[in-house]
Amino acid sequence: MDPRDLQTLLEKVRDGAMSPDDAVKRLEHMPFEDLGFAKVDHHRALRHGMPEVILGQGKTVDEVHAISEKLLERSPNLLVTRASEAMFEAVRKLDDKAEFFPRSSAIRVWGDRKIRGKAKIAIICAGTSDIPVAQEAQVTAEVMGNEVDTIYDVGVAGIHRLLSNMERLNGSRVVICCAGMEGALPSAVGGLVSVPVIAVPTSVGYGASFNGLSALLGMLNSCSSNVSVVNIDNGFGAAYVATLINRL
Amino acid sequence: MDPRDLQTLLEKVRDGAMSPDDAVKRLEHMPFEDLGFAKVDHHRALRHGMPEVILGQGKTVDEVHAISEKLLERSPNLLVTRASEAMFEAVRKLDDKAEFFPRSSAIRVWGDRKIRGKAKIAIICAGTSDIPVAQEAQVTAEVMGNEVDTIYDVGVAGIHRLLSNMERLNGSRVVICCAGMEGALPSAVGGLVSVPVIAVPTSVGYGASFNGLSALLGMLNSCSSNVSVVNIDNGFGAAYVATLINRL
Amino acid sequence: MDPRDLQTLLEKVRDGAMSPDDAVKRLEHMPFEDLGFAKVDHHRALRHGMPEVILGQGKTVDEVHAISEKLLERSPNLLVTRASEAMFEAVRKLDDKAEFFPRSSAIRVWGDRKIRGKAKIAIICAGTSDIPVAQEAQVTAEVMGNEVDTIYDVGVAGIHRLLSNMERLNGSRVVICCAGMEGALPSAVGGLVSVPVIAVPTSVGYGASFNGLSALLGMLNSCSSNVSVVNIDNGFGAAYVATLINRL
Amino acid sequence: MDPRDLQTLLEKVRDGAMSPDDAVKRLEHMPFEDLGFAKVDHHRALRHGMPEVILGQGKTVDEVHAISEKLLERSPNLLVTRASEAMFEAVRKLDDKAEFFPRSSAIRVWGDRKIRGKAKIAIICAGTSDIPVAQEAQVTAEVMGNEVDTIYDVGVAGIHRLLSNMERLNGSRVVICCAGMEGALPSAVGGLVSVPVIAVPTSVGYGASFNGLSALLGMLNSCSSNVSVVNIDNGFGAAYVATLINRL
Amino acid sequence: MDPRDLQTLLEKVRDGAMSPDDAVKRLEHMPFEDLGFAKVDHHRALRHGMPEVILGQGKTVDEVHAISEKLLERSPNLLVTRASEAMFEAVRKLDDKAEFFPRSSAIRVWGDRKIRGKAKIAIICAGTSDIPVAQEAQVTAEVMGNEVDTIYDVGVAGIHRLLSNMERLNGSRVVICCAGMEGALPSAVGGLVSVPVIAVPTSVGYGASFNGLSALLGMLNSCSSNVSVVNIDNGFGAAYVATLINRL
Amino acid sequence: MDPRDLQTLLEKVRDGAMSPDDAVKRLEHMPFEDLGFAKVDHHRALRHGMPEVILGQGKTVDEVHAISEKLLERSPNLLVTRASEAMFEAVRKLDDKAEFFPRSSAIRVWGDRKIRGKAKIAIICAGTSDIPVAQEAQVTAEVMGNEVDTIYDVGVAGIHRLLSNMERLNGSRVVICCAGMEGALPSAVGGLVSVPVIAVPTSVGYGASFNGLSALLGMLNSCSSNVSVVNIDNGFGAAYVATLINRL
Amino acid sequence: MDPRDLQTLLEKVRDGAMSPDDAVKRLEHMPFEDLGFAKVDHHRALRHGMPEVILGQGKTVDEVHAISEKLLERSPNLLVTRASEAMFEAVRKLDDKAEFFPRSSAIRVWGDRKIRGKAKIAIICAGTSDIPVAQEAQVTAEVMGNEVDTIYDVGVAGIHRLLSNMERLNGSRVVICCAGMEGALPSAVGGLVSVPVIAVPTSVGYGASFNGLSALLGMLNSCSSNVSVVNIDNGFGAAYVATLINRL
Amino acid sequence: MDPRDLQTLLEKVRDGAMSPDDAVKRLEHMPFEDLGFAKVDHHRALRHGMPEVILGQGKTVDEVHAISEKLLERSPNLLVTRASEAMFEAVRKLDDKAEFFPRSSAIRVWGDRKIRGKAKIAIICAGTSDIPVAQEAQVTAEVMGNEVDTIYDVGVAGIHRLLSNMERLNGSRVVICCAGMEGALPSAVGGLVSVPVIAVPTSVGYGASFNGLSALLGMLNSCSSNVSVVNIDNGFGAAYVATLINRL
Repeated sequence: MDPRDLQTLLEKVRDGAMSPDDAVKRLEHMPFEDLGFAKVDHHRALRHGMPEVILGQGKTVDEVHAISEKLLERSPNLLVTRASEAMFEAVRKLDDKAEFFPRSSAIRVWGDRKIRGKAKIAIICAGTSDIPVAQEAQVTAEVMGNEVDTIYDVGVAGIHRLLSNMERLNGSRVVICCAGMEGALPSAVGGLVSVPVIAVPTSVGYGASFNGLSALLGMLNSCSSNVSVVNIDNGFGAAYVATLINRL
Repeated sequence: MDPRDLQTLLEKVRDGAMSPDDAVKRLEHMPFEDLGFAKVDHHRALRHGMPEVILGQGKTVDEVHAISEKLLERSPNLLVTRASEAMFEAVRKLDDKAEFFPRSSAIRVWGDRKIRGKAKIAIICAGTSDIPVAQEAQVTAEVMGNEVDTIYDVGVAGIHRLLSNMERLNGSRVVICCAGMEGALPSAVGGLVSVPVIAVPTSVGYGASFNGLSALLGMLNSCSSNVSVVNIDNGFGAAYVATLINRL
Repeated sequence: MDPRDLQTLLEKVRDGAMSPDDAVKRLEHMPFEDLGFAKVDHHRALRHGMPEVILGQGKTVDEVHAISEKLLERSPNLLVTRASEAMFEAVRKLDDKAEFFPRSSAIRVWGDRKIRGKAKIAIICAGTSDIPVAQEAQVTAEVMGNEVDTIYDVGVAGIHRLLSNMERLNGSRVVICCAGMEGALPSAVGGLVSVPVIAVPTSVGYGASFNGLSALLGMLNSCSSNVSVVNIDNGFGAAYVATLINRL
Repeated sequence: MDPRDLQTLLEKVRDGAMSPDDAVKRLEHMPFEDLGFAKVDHHRALRHGMPEVILGQGKTVDEVHAISEKLLERSPNLLVTRASEAMFEAVRKLDDKAEFFPRSSAIRVWGDRKIRGKAKIAIICAGTSDIPVAQEAQVTAEVMGNEVDTIYDVGVAGIHRLLSNMERLNGSRVVICCAGMEGALPSAVGGLVSVPVIAVPTSVGYGASFNGLSALLGMLNSCSSNVSVVNIDNGFGAAYVATLINRL
Repeated sequence: MDPRDLQTLLEKVRDGAMSPDDAVKRLEHMPFEDLGFAKVDHHRALRHGMPEVILGQGKTVDEVHAISEKLLERSPNLLVTRASEAMFEAVRKLDDKAEFFPRSSAIRVWGDRKIRGKAKIAIICAGTSDIPVAQEAQVTAEVMGNEVDTIYDVGVAGIHRLLSNMERLNGSRVVICCAGMEGALPSAVGGLVSVPVIAVPTSVGYGASFNGLSALLGMLNSCSSNVSVVNIDNGFGAAYVATLINRL
Repeated sequence: MDPRDLQTLLEKVRDGAMSPDDAVKRLEHMPFEDLGFAKVDHHRALRHGMPEVILGQGKTVDEVHAISEKLLERSPNLLVTRASEAMFEAVRKLDDKAEFFPRSSAIRVWGDRKIRGKAKIAIICAGTSDIPVAQEAQVTAEVMGNEVDTIYDVGVAGIHRLLSNMERLNGSRVVICCAGMEGALPSAVGGLVSVPVIAVPTSVGYGASFNGLSALLGMLNSCSSNVSVVNIDNGFGAAYVATLINRL
Repeated sequence: MDPRDLQTLLEKVRDGAMSPDDAVKRLEHMPFEDLGFAKVDHHRALRHGMPEVILGQGKTVDEVHAISEKLLERSPNLLVTRASEAMFEAVRKLDDKAEFFPRSSAIRVWGDRKIRGKAKIAIICAGTSDIPVAQEAQVTAEVMGNEVDTIYDVGVAGIHRLLSNMERLNGSRVVICCAGMEGALPSAVGGLVSVPVIAVPTSVGYGASFNGLSALLGMLNSCSSNVSVVNIDNGFGAAYVATLINRL
Repeated sequence: MDPRDLQTLLEKVRDGAMSPDDAVKRLEHMPFEDLGFAKVDHHRALRHGMPEVILGQGKTVDEVHAISEKLLERSPNLLVTRASEAMFEAVRKLDDKAEFFPRSSAIRVWGDRKIRGKAKIAIICAGTSDIPVAQEAQVTAEVMGNEVDTIYDVGVAGIHRLLSNMERLNGSRVVICCAGMEGALPSAVGGLVSVPVIAVPTSVGYGASFNGLSALLGMLNSCSSNVSVVNIDNGFGAAYVATLINRL
């Protein structure tokens, strides 16, 4: 809740336009509305200046449909992450501009395509298998108003590939770096650029990759100081942080 | 190595001002000088636009002294992290402006105090015991040219303390959030501000805190999407990322 | 076995109404009856003053049917947790009041609806995905004679939602708090109420949530001292402990 | 912050006794005072109805001294956990009633010895080596106004010892159960009593006890449903929860 | 290879009945025959005095069939553990006395039912869900010539059930104890009997049982000194060790 | 408690020689005496037919002294494991036959040297560094009445050493096998002998040995079926189990 | 990129045969071509002197088809690891010499069968269940030009089997050793041969094998110094390293 | 034991020069001599063609002295790893050529300096703090007859440093690569060279490096196929494997 809202409310109380009892109730009940199973918080979206996003995982198709309907009434853009194809069918009934990205399980309604970021966000991934996570980051960054430059399959074992993309990397205001297995790419990229690097460990690998743990630990211990890390496979979160940075 | 440097060098070759053999050698040997036990990379510092920093841990006092001497010849500012008091004595002989911060084991020479960041960096920590890590972040952010606003001891169990600091949080361009134990503070802060939050898990706690693992996992799983994470107790890294963001 | 039973038995021996040999046998064989594959301990139920509960997981449909039949002969209430729909069909044949809760995989026969708890139990969960665990707690708490107040989807990232429910939280005698991901909700709730908080980590999340480990560690390290913790996804156990507290 | 306080404040605004601007400031700054390095929250203590407790670990002797002084001005009782002998010397200068418990590293000022709990709290531990944790629970429970019954060294391997203490266990309103190694005691105790059992894993053991992890996991997986768990070696937390239950 | 065999062979060399070259070859190639994909070592079986056992897991039906055929030529008894129903069909074609135990996935041909153990082996398990593992132990112990006494569903939370079976436990020469969840049963049993206890952690449980890790750690840390442990769900191994002990 | 004791007691009740009330009290309080901080259970020792053992770790010197005094009144043999030299000095004052084994931190009073085991126990260890654990097993096995044959430094990397000791291994009734690092020795030994093998992982190693975890996991997964495992560094426990087996 | 290529390029610049601008572009863009979703690096293959290999896992059938087509244009040999049968069908359409190995999920086109290794590579595995991993190593080593000697099912529990294969082991220039469960085989083999041993932990096992972690740790802690380790189930990697060694 | 020795022995038996009984004894007792606490296996050293090495850790100074004396009688070269300065003093008394390397805790007697390797071994490390491990590798590789080229402090974050050393890397027959923190260096190096890379994770780092686990996992998951891995901080093992490769 915003200090100015509070000020306005208190002024109404002072002016007798609102009773103290009502003010208490407003303060308690104002910030969201109730759908029964999930509370949609428009205030939160406003605070961050970005459209609310639905995490599909753990929700039923009906729930995703109901929340999407509510959100689309107020916003031309919508993102559903970790969504099923059935959820996509439900959302498309609400808005036929809805797109589905099966590799990254994302649903996107991208009505308002205005660019709000101050420069490009580079999204780089180490191997072909990391593309689903990189794509989730791309879909997110785009719907949130960023120009995106994707550089796929430039792993550490082939450093020349990385070096030949230096110009594109240096043209970005923030770099998202997705890698599984040993997760070494952010360290190498971090040493080459002078902007923040958001590292996304992916669950790509087998055996001692332990579903992304290896990449996660590697990134947390990066010897490049401009690297910070989000959860395994969290392409969405990386794009969200990158968007905030790109709007500053 | 910068594309323009390469261009210049190739033009010299074209003009006969440099032989191909010499060019190969220049390309290979140019970017750093050799101290025997540690290569100091001025180019890297220039790329990032920030002073080089020495990690004291794992180095001898003599090594820290030698590297510091080399670096202080070129830069009025120096930071040694995870340093001992003996290292401080050695650095103070090189520059009597050197300060020592025993709680966070940091040595700082802060000759050039020009503010380069565009706004304030807020540094917030959950408990008194997290102060050493928060202080490492503060010392670092300051020497790198940022105005810092520290808000200590505002844990999740006392949410009112947090809420009463909203104005200061909202006045910052990026927030560094240090917490041990359950590491819940970044989630709460992330829900309240609309800027990037850099979360630093600390090794504060006992038992099932597993030396910061609990806080680390909590932060990686934050339900606030504007949170990214650095290594346990890595106040320096958080400040470095925050500085980059604050200069954008 | 109860000291008074022992006293009674010994008095019979003193009075010659029972031989020492028979007494030894009674002492050894009395407390339960034998179904072949599972021993149903009515004594234990009596000791705790609550209906016995069947853990469906790891049992066959036939076993659940047989144990349910035995238990329903003596009690109007029955709970089967982690049950399949096939188990529900088997139980419904025994008692057509049986209900099935597919999200939380619970079967309930709720014949005796007398309220035995002294006040309300609040059940609060962080996200929509945590509802199955919260529902298991609700179903359990109700069948054990408690009035329940459920407050769903009030996570730490939206602290205002939590604060707007303070009155309901403060009206409860014990709070059950279910959360996955970083598991921070119990710390925040614990700081706001002055009653015991039973924390239930859920396996909701992905990547570094490690199937609930992250939430579990977070809750064990809670900086709020009124928090104790049960196993991951153990809504039943939380409700059981809460019921005991609510009857005191 | 309490709804009634808010009501009062709003009534002042309505009555013109306070301006909206001042009200905003009051709402933000009221709940605590500032010591520089640590904010002492009297409100929080009042909310829970219990004296504030200082966690000695991670604080300097001077910090403990300063906070203790502040707290002792308002309360006749004080507890410092995980404290050093030097901290004890500092506290004793403030109040010569201060006691030190070296095994459990606790400092206690127990001025007000009024019993506030409705019945006894039983504290039971498995082996001699678990006594330090049990003692921390005892010291805490006593200073918080409970009558305590301690039953030490009754491990699972000697079930007869446990059974011979049934009467004392059954005379308690809540049981605190401390055990290291395999942590089996709470399961056995939980099956014998009909009150809540707070389990405290201890770091006692070696090898595969992994500093209490083994006991912690055992307790979380207890087959007795009346068991909830706190952090490893957290005797204080167990006593805190038990106190809340004992006052209900 | 047995010293006496070596002696015999060397005597043949001395007597000129075998050339040194042939002796070298015999020493190298004697101890087994080759099936192409798996070497069946009859010597090993003889050394231990027990029939060879096939681990079904990781083998094809054809492999199990071929090895079984080879083994049944020389022995009236056969055990296939972790077997599928298809493997059972293949073995039944070789010997129609073959039995299948679906709960424990074991195939048994039990032609020679002579008792070779000196006393009974007690097999005890904590809950109904542990029966598959206990049954694997039972099937194994029987086919290896032991009289078995099974005591199922006597967990630690109902200590009276355990105590009422003391006579049967004390009548055994070795006790196999299967338990999941907190794995506390072997500690309790170990304190009650004066014979070796072989503990088998089972993967029964959920959440923080971590697929049997919790039970495994509990058993390794048992405070009863007469307990040793085998792998999670390894009912076969426990019965094998118990058989060896029972034959001594 | 023994069924025959119970019978005797009940007969006294029948004969009027004891009142039911007294019988209840006897049943509850008979099995041990109280030292204040630790309950010494002579019954337990009798049940197992072996002297009680004191775990020094976590006890004070005074506690060890007091318990030792109590135990030495009734038994000529005493073992204190994980003891300090100061504890040894205290015990030597009670009995000048006391020996101290600094490598394995064991104190032993070995008054009664009668052999009770039916054959030899072989104790084998992989490397020189494993000797402390092997020695704890040796000291224990001897004081419990076994003839011991120690075979040190016969690791898996030098299989010939192992094979040259076959005769001694085969002359034993049970083998204790101590190994750190990869913990492979029990598998190799288990394949060579036809008696039970008790495996003791040691904390010897560095890096990925993780203080014995590597050896522990190796032993639990042994492909030799005659292997069971005790806790890391638990030479005492291995000798205890071996003694029980050797007396059968 | 090779220093000689650079020299040649620079000589062209010197001679005016190439402009500096073009040289910069060449340096940046030369080393690979772009397929859109995956960059095929022929240079890398040349550097190592071995055919490029496709990791099937995480790629679509179409992607494998497209990359295979590109690679088969330039090389008579191709390997696809962790491939599906559908991928095999796609590759067979490109080259009917393609073979499929279902157990190890490998596709191989083996056109050029010239032997390039200097001696044999021995591939040894502990149990039948380890054969899939051993087979991946075999298929790889063969297509890379090595003569392979496979020795399957020679585990540590039957040391005689291992010893009887000494001659074949000693006839190899490098040994690949695959084992699951306790992973002890490389230690035993390493003690018997004087060549490098590449250890491959397999995910064979159950319970505390933790999907190969147990074998991995065992191999990393091997007491035989000639052992190095690759990832769990990484038969391909072991063969790759062995091939490099065999060509030296 | 060598097949030719066996042949010779059997021929003696055939010729009557040795009795079968004596032959059995020879076969069993020949391969090593007995020092009481540690068996020195000269045969093993001969098999591998390299001097025996003593692991100082876990041995007393006297033991190291005694073993060293025995070994120095037969070999001009000796290596003691993980040794203390006291051990060095003891060894220097035996041979005044003994050197001590305090950073890597190694003692070396390097009498025979003949080069036996076919080319150079490159030893590369990521940071100054990794030098102790790299030095252990260097000391070992030298004493085993290799020419060594050390390239220190060339981490992944400064890729240019690595690239400028390409010529030296390419001049080596095998590369040892030591790195802590994220352990990314071997992946980068592996992509640049066409020889085997032995990766050594170091325990350098803090927080989520978990004492080298992070680097270890990173290296095991290397996307460069020419990488194999040894234990954390095992510079000795890496040099041993490299030596074997360099002699092929």
